[in-house]
Amino acid sequence: LSRITIALDAMSGGHGPSVIVPAALDVLKRFDNNLVHLILVGDESSLTSLVHSYGGQLNNCLSIHPASEVVAMDDPPAQALRFKKDSSMRVAINLVKKGIAGACVSSGNTGALMSSARFVLKTWPGIDRPAISALLPTMKPNQVVRILDLGANVDSSAEQLLQFGIMGSVLASSVGNIAKPKVGLLNVGSEEIKGNEQVKAAAKLFSENQLINYIGYVEGDDIYKGTADVIVCDGFVGNVALKTSEGLAKMIRQYVRDAFTQNWYCKCLAFLARPILTRIAKRFDPSRYNGASLVGLQGTVIKSHGSADRLAFASAIRQAIREVQSNVSNQIGREIERVVAELDSL
Amino acid sequence: LSRITIALDAMSGGHGPSVIVPAALDVLKRFDNNLVHLILVGDESSLTSLVHSYGGQLNNCLSIHPASEVVAMDDPPAQALRFKKDSSMRVAINLVKKGIAGACVSSGNTGALMSSARFVLKTWPGIDRPAISALLPTMKPNQVVRILDLGANVDSSAEQLLQFGIMGSVLASSVGNIAKPKVGLLNVGSEEIKGNEQVKAAAKLFSENQLINYIGYVEGDDIYKGTADVIVCDGFVGNVALKTSEGLAKMIRQYVRDAFTQNWYCKCLAFLARPILTRIAKRFDPSRYNGASLVGLQGTVIKSHGSADRLAFASAIRQAIREVQSNVSNQIGREIERVVAELDSL
Repeated sequence: LSRITIALDAMSGGHGPSVIVPAALDVLKRFDNNLVHLILVGDESSLTSLVHSYGGQLNNCLSIHPASEVVAMDDPPAQALRFKKDSSMRVAINLVKKGIAGACVSSGNTGALMSSARFVLKTWPGIDRPAISALLPTMKPNQVVRILDLGANVDSSAEQLLQFGIMGSVLASSVGNIAKPKVGLLNVGSEEIKGNEQVKAAAKLFSENQLINYIGYVEGDDIYKGTADVIVCDGFVGNVALKTSEGLAKMIRQYVRDAFTQNWYCKCLAFLARPILTRIAKRFDPSRYNGASLVGLQGTVIKSHGSADRLAFASAIRQAIREVQSNVSNQIGREIERVVAELDSL
Repeated sequence: LSRITIALDAMSGGHGPSVIVPAALDVLKRFDNNLVHLILVGDESSLTSLVHSYGGQLNNCLSIHPASEVVAMDDPPAQALRFKKDSSMRVAINLVKKGIAGACVSSGNTGALMSSARFVLKTWPGIDRPAISALLPTMKPNQVVRILDLGANVDSSAEQLLQFGIMGSVLASSVGNIAKPKVGLLNVGSEEIKGNEQVKAAAKLFSENQLINYIGYVEGDDIYKGTADVIVCDGFVGNVALKTSEGLAKMIRQYVRDAFTQNWYCKCLAFLARPILTRIAKRFDPSRYNGASLVGLQGTVIKSHGSADRLAFASAIRQAIREVQSNVSNQIGREIERVVAELDSL
């Protein structure tokens, strides 16, 4: 087994290094034999003291790579790209480009991460822009669903939707170990006007394509039903679906909190039911599913949620490790090459 | 106070008359002095015996109007429109057209309801197609959000989105009693590519329009935050957001059920916590929010969820009563006329 190196943008995100350093230490505890090497990219002195304060030490499994700047959450992507060339985000991506790291993880500004990664690493030939893909839980035990695009591409063409399908399928089979991943195309249900122009055109491409196991249209409620292993949609639609879900989950958590703190009887019950409530919260906890993949790049980049806590950031690091282990970025490049050749030959 | 008459498509929907008849009786119990008159449209003999079996009676508050056919859930809309002219759905819409009923309620096939309503009632001048609007709960106590379009229009133009904004605003002020309803435009958050072409163009129209209180872009998680009173989006996006929410709520309910039935300790706690769990479920129970409005028509049509139960169908009837009381359809017609005149004068 070869060693896996992951560069962590240690300065970005809502909580910055105070979450990222302990998350890195947590991940390293799970791997023996120097199998994983994490590089903390950012301010050397503050990162060093944070590592020590969390009882860790710098060695051949955990090192620091200096970077003098930080991309702020509200920095315009073009500005971050042009003027913050020594930011922790950019340097982490550069380490992937140079082959020093197999992947990088950042919880910084999505737009800046997207444009910097695209500028430095480039997409595979045949792919215009990377897509964002994430895992969501389903009602079926031990089954997750991979959905893309989640906001990198709006007004996607039918050809782009097909590319998302191929990329999602490769992710599900190589990282998710699913033999023939079922791929669904997200659509609306009203019979009279089934689908917009993009989706109708994409459905044709999907059913003609031999590389994917296309199961047809799925609707919004199919996401959590576990109907498909991969769900393909335009980035506008996917982003709304994801954020709507986050909002609803938050509202329900608040309703639960309100109801269980109304009076002493409720509070007592909440205490007794705590393990049950925790188990429920865990099953749909976004932190378990943290770590979205920027797919289509010549290199592996994982986007962590900006507000990720220690547990959630550790999930994102593990997602990066899995993607490097399964060599998914190169596989996507090869499959897309085949599709482009196929489409060209028509 | 004038009397309100509502025509109920009594034969359609997943549960048909066995849910609709008792729901109608429930609603009538709440209104005194002959204020409301409900017309059950459908098979005369079976409806009569159902009314009696639920302890009701036919009188000047509850009558039956015969219709010999039923639109099936999977009937293609065009076929329903052309060949089922004596369906309970069509006859209920006809009663609105003739001025016998102030509104109709149906839990039948959305596509068929949409095309039949559009054919019989026509949209107001300046509106191409009706939109579907529904209420959703928010985190703020006693605050709901009205979202449209939920699937009647895909590939909506910027002008159509503006029309949705006007119609939603009129609904929120006249039915929801909100003085200056805050109207948000649903968008995605990634800075690099904020918005698709439609939404960018619509934002310009919204900010120039004087009739609506436009608060700018909102994101998926704002729906349940209560950021806006009205959220405007293309029907494809709205439909996915709504169905994704339904799917997630269903998944969480299943997780709760699973967790509270795992062993005897959990089951005992579930018994003790039942009133609390019920209170939580009630707060985000879709049946409380059942009754979507088909807005933009020269007449009031309410679409109930196909799987609505007795409680949910009663909500839809009450929604119809509120819309007739506030004369919302005519108000929308007038406002749209003003907007069209304004746009034409530019």
